[in-house]
Amino acid sequence: MIRVAVNGYGTIGKRVADAVTLQPDMELVGVAKTRPNHEAETAVRKGYPLYAAIEDRVHLFEEAGIELAGTVEELVEAADVVVDACPSGIGAENKAMYEAYDTPALYQGGESADLVDVSFNARGNYDEAEGADHVRVVSCNTTGLSRLLAPVEEAYGVEKARVTLVRRGGDPGQTGRGPINDILPNPVTLPSHHGPDVNTIFPDLDIDTLGMKVPATLMHTHSVNVTLEDAPDAADEVRDLLAEESRLFLIPERHDIDGAGKLKEYAYDIGRPRGDLWENCIWEESVSIEGDDLYLFQAIHQESDVVPENVDAIRAVLGEADRGESMARTDETMGVGLP
Amino acid sequence: MIRVAVNGYGTIGKRVADAVTLQPDMELVGVAKTRPNHEAETAVRKGYPLYAAIEDRVHLFEEAGIELAGTVEELVEAADVVVDACPSGIGAENKAMYEAYDTPALYQGGESADLVDVSFNARGNYDEAEGADHVRVVSCNTTGLSRLLAPVEEAYGVEKARVTLVRRGGDPGQTGRGPINDILPNPVTLPSHHGPDVNTIFPDLDIDTLGMKVPATLMHTHSVNVTLEDAPDAADEVRDLLAEESRLFLIPERHDIDGAGKLKEYAYDIGRPRGDLWENCIWEESVSIEGDDLYLFQAIHQESDVVPENVDAIRAVLGEADRGESMARTDETMGVGLP
Amino acid sequence: MIRVAVNGYGTIGKRVADAVTLQPDMELVGVAKTRPNHEAETAVRKGYPLYAAIEDRVHLFEEAGIELAGTVEELVEAADVVVDACPSGIGAENKAMYEAYDTPALYQGGESADLVDVSFNARGNYDEAEGADHVRVVSCNTTGLSRLLAPVEEAYGVEKARVTLVRRGGDPGQTGRGPINDILPNPVTLPSHHGPDVNTIFPDLDIDTLGMKVPATLMHTHSVNVTLEDAPDAADEVRDLLAEESRLFLIPERHDIDGAGKLKEYAYDIGRPRGDLWENCIWEESVSIEGDDLYLFQAIHQESDVVPENVDAIRAVLGEADRGESMARTDETMGVGLP
Amino acid sequence: MIRVAVNGYGTIGKRVADAVTLQPDMELVGVAKTRPNHEAETAVRKGYPLYAAIEDRVHLFEEAGIELAGTVEELVEAADVVVDACPSGIGAENKAMYEAYDTPALYQGGESADLVDVSFNARGNYDEAEGADHVRVVSCNTTGLSRLLAPVEEAYGVEKARVTLVRRGGDPGQTGRGPINDILPNPVTLPSHHGPDVNTIFPDLDIDTLGMKVPATLMHTHSVNVTLEDAPDAADEVRDLLAEESRLFLIPERHDIDGAGKLKEYAYDIGRPRGDLWENCIWEESVSIEGDDLYLFQAIHQESDVVPENVDAIRAVLGEADRGESMARTDETMGVGLP
Repeated sequence: MIRVAVNGYGTIGKRVADAVTLQPDMELVGVAKTRPNHEAETAVRKGYPLYAAIEDRVHLFEEAGIELAGTVEELVEAADVVVDACPSGIGAENKAMYEAYDTPALYQGGESADLVDVSFNARGNYDEAEGADHVRVVSCNTTGLSRLLAPVEEAYGVEKARVTLVRRGGDPGQTGRGPINDILPNPVTLPSHHGPDVNTIFPDLDIDTLGMKVPATLMHTHSVNVTLEDAPDAADEVRDLLAEESRLFLIPERHDIDGAGKLKEYAYDIGRPRGDLWENCIWEESVSIEGDDLYLFQAIHQESDVVPENVDAIRAVLGEADRGESMARTDETMGVGLP
Repeated sequence: MIRVAVNGYGTIGKRVADAVTLQPDMELVGVAKTRPNHEAETAVRKGYPLYAAIEDRVHLFEEAGIELAGTVEELVEAADVVVDACPSGIGAENKAMYEAYDTPALYQGGESADLVDVSFNARGNYDEAEGADHVRVVSCNTTGLSRLLAPVEEAYGVEKARVTLVRRGGDPGQTGRGPINDILPNPVTLPSHHGPDVNTIFPDLDIDTLGMKVPATLMHTHSVNVTLEDAPDAADEVRDLLAEESRLFLIPERHDIDGAGKLKEYAYDIGRPRGDLWENCIWEESVSIEGDDLYLFQAIHQESDVVPENVDAIRAVLGEADRGESMARTDETMGVGLP
Repeated sequence: MIRVAVNGYGTIGKRVADAVTLQPDMELVGVAKTRPNHEAETAVRKGYPLYAAIEDRVHLFEEAGIELAGTVEELVEAADVVVDACPSGIGAENKAMYEAYDTPALYQGGESADLVDVSFNARGNYDEAEGADHVRVVSCNTTGLSRLLAPVEEAYGVEKARVTLVRRGGDPGQTGRGPINDILPNPVTLPSHHGPDVNTIFPDLDIDTLGMKVPATLMHTHSVNVTLEDAPDAADEVRDLLAEESRLFLIPERHDIDGAGKLKEYAYDIGRPRGDLWENCIWEESVSIEGDDLYLFQAIHQESDVVPENVDAIRAVLGEADRGESMARTDETMGVGLP
Repeated sequence: MIRVAVNGYGTIGKRVADAVTLQPDMELVGVAKTRPNHEAETAVRKGYPLYAAIEDRVHLFEEAGIELAGTVEELVEAADVVVDACPSGIGAENKAMYEAYDTPALYQGGESADLVDVSFNARGNYDEAEGADHVRVVSCNTTGLSRLLAPVEEAYGVEKARVTLVRRGGDPGQTGRGPINDILPNPVTLPSHHGPDVNTIFPDLDIDTLGMKVPATLMHTHSVNVTLEDAPDAADEVRDLLAEESRLFLIPERHDIDGAGKLKEYAYDIGRPRGDLWENCIWEESVSIEGDDLYLFQAIHQESDVVPENVDAIRAVLGEADRGESMARTDETMGVGLP
């Protein structure tokens, strides 16, 4: 049993913790939080051992009547691997602690690629993570692009990819974030940093990206163009290729799903916890071939698509399973793969 | 076992169907749908017998490879009671069919009060529904107001209630609805129809309401004022009163919940299906007494707060349990009542 | 000629500067800005003498090639009165400078009432400002409520006013502000501070207010209830009363204006600069009488409704005209009063 | 003097009417409207002769006390050219009337290209309109793309253009339009119709487009990629090229304009009527060259960018001026070209 610690119990951390408990080869040693809020209460109610992420705040948990199992350092020491799901930049601050306890650490995509030995996407470069001490599971958007571009590159070769990422302004509960009524080029300077982030997974891929921010909270949406080296005659061939990937969901035309709202409704209907969509959601009708160019739209659930990747990264780092085994096990236990 | 049919398998219908299957004294005979879309597929996958709501469209289901158990008339005939969860106005068209098969029917709040014998809210007027052939479970907003005003009236007497309902423009998947960037008095003429709708439950209550529509999809929010006949000295007394009601959730200040986004996140965290909030969500800090006036804010989940009411209405109509028994059973099986 | 300085050339400051130049009895001595951005360029292009609000930044203007007339201290010294339109809290920091030069100062509603001798609304308490050194022109929302409640109090007596203020999340260019998809009780504790702010104009008025924040940028909207001491029989009488006030615009039913978007379009159509709506915009159909209760909806343009009030406050402080004269002159020169 | 009629006095029609009155070589014969609303009142107040667009409704104008100059047929007969600014599809219905009176007609981009002899963009194909009876001024988006691609094609040659159009859900007053909180691929099938619409101006241009719809009302925003035949070494060269075009506004970095909200604010500051932005608004920093690929972001004001094009089309059709003369005259009289 792999003993897994989760440091940071917010949007990503709580999902990773839930997913870890579903794995037959993993044990959730505990989760660490900075504050005794209702998420902390819920963690305890679920039976997750709770650790204080900041030693000075232990008394706050005590005052709130929330039982602690210890401090984050004890948690890190007890674990075979720690998943750091702290806010961007805090992971970097935690690195020394993980090194002090000689515990391999996974970070999230908000951390810099320079912080780690390897940036990771299960479909893209699973094998490279084995034995690494510091691994970054790339961001939701980079995960979405890596999953898509991996099979396309293998089947047809990518001459150049160009992607416009229309990003949600904030998550549903982030009420302090805007814009309220605007479309913001973001960043304004081009190409955006998203392309180089994809290059941490596929160093040789020629990709230019552009980002915008809009008043929506549910999902990011990508407008994707890939100029292929050896394009197929028909889009159906590409659809078949993508349909074979468990983490790509081809939205059938008959589902009448026009955006993220109906995608979430679909996720609720089939019983997904939190309405999570772990898969890239690609509109089947949108997949098209114009000469050498492939076009498509995909929606990316920023809160959850990296969760199965974190689970796989645990196995990859420890060398406990090969890519195929790990992805299959993660998918089966979580229920990844939409009907 | 009460044999329950659900006619209309959309936002409300699918939730009612799920809730019915949780009841020890009920059996879901089947659900009826007009179109063979992905909701129909999901119903079949869940094992709900599926009936065609429109006979002429049986072939569409067949073409889509979705197995039908029959037509809606057969479903109505086989049931002890039918819950009509069709879009507003369709319920009225269905009334003759329910009468033809002598099956008592529950309608939703979009239908006119004139259509039915009794308008219904479990906390407000449970007993009045017994033996009625046509009962209307009042709308999400009227349900929310009835639940709140019932205990307030009993404890302090209501001299006059004044409520501003700030309504979401559409549900998350209703992408054709606006407004995008506006605050709309809606209706413009005052007082609005919401007050008279509350009077279908409490005929003698003096209530004036005003409605607005805003660019939000998650929940309605009510700004509530009640001038009391016999006001308590302190707001804490009111908080205690409201806290005793299982379908009123007093949002604790320590939860740092500032709106519907974080409420939904909380619902996800505690494992609610679809992130549903069946309870009125009342900000505890907002409950205040100024002289004879009570003020508070409450958020109402338009997609789900009527679901336990529909379950209770089934028992009320058939006289199968008294109010206390029914509400307790519904709450326990569904998990109504937030920590 | 009254020599007027405007310190702070943002949303309010630039509008006040434009309005001052329209007054036959006033001269705009200059405007002060902290940064050499495009608003500074525009001020210069309009021929407004530009002063540096922060002495250390003079060189930034020089580097940007923007000609300065001096520093803000010189501007304040040269003026008979200064309108401080700096961001909330900066006005308080500027107070000592205004006192040092013995220049009477007008502040905006974001400053505390404690900072000043008198809080001001032209219709509400014009005469009280005469001779004061520090006067606060109350906020957009308080201005809107004061204009409305003054004639209602005079005609019918106000027993109690209750207002729900549904506020825009940010101005159109404030892209960092949310919420994106939520309705936020704000503040959560009740009653809100807006009522006490109205009491700085009408100390004896009994008013309770509740505030919310929503994803809209164009205008605030108020749901207003006033319990009258001596209510008229019919709403038409109230409409006639309100129609006599130049700064209240009764939106005619035939205009088909359902919200702030169409109000702005109307403002554009009639040639308003920036589409500004200096008047309270009251839906004529919404004005209604239920027993002793008056109800109505009004929209308030947060960016501009205080502009004529600032112009009047200049005359009030210096004792240069009585209320009637000043308001009439301001209205005529600016074009206040909608067809 | 060219006698110009404007049929349809909504978003586009009223702007075209205003622009026509500014032209030294044109006379506004009148405008036609279907309904006696406040726009009709404003037209009369401005001194524009008003004609009833539908004969059966003449009495409605009379009842509303709005003076009519006649019916639309009389207007068309009296004019040298008619600008049809009716809602999409109505222009097609009006074609026979224009032919009956032998009056050349300009239609808007909502009409089909098949309806007309020539689709028109001043910068793109001015000369082709001379003598045509039916000319379509292309849509706001196609106008924006044509203005940009014309100089780029001339200077560097376009191998292929790929554009993602992130479109506003509705105009500010269109409160019935959504989405409220979503990003909608629209249309889902790719490439979108926008590319073929550009081909009505540049038949040989290789262009693929993708469209999305988001909850914003102010402007569309394009993410533009052009693979060039003969790319320059540096983006500055492209900036210089674009800066020479009067209808392209390169937003300077120092303006700190991050989106459409601040663009509108800028338009207000410089005194633009209605805050209109007739120019493509291109972020200067975004213009970049990566190998053979040009990238940039541009915002398009859907309500106004076609207005100068309509003015030019009038002269083009009647052969009254060549392209350079007409564009210069239009720009100078309207004030096109931002500082």
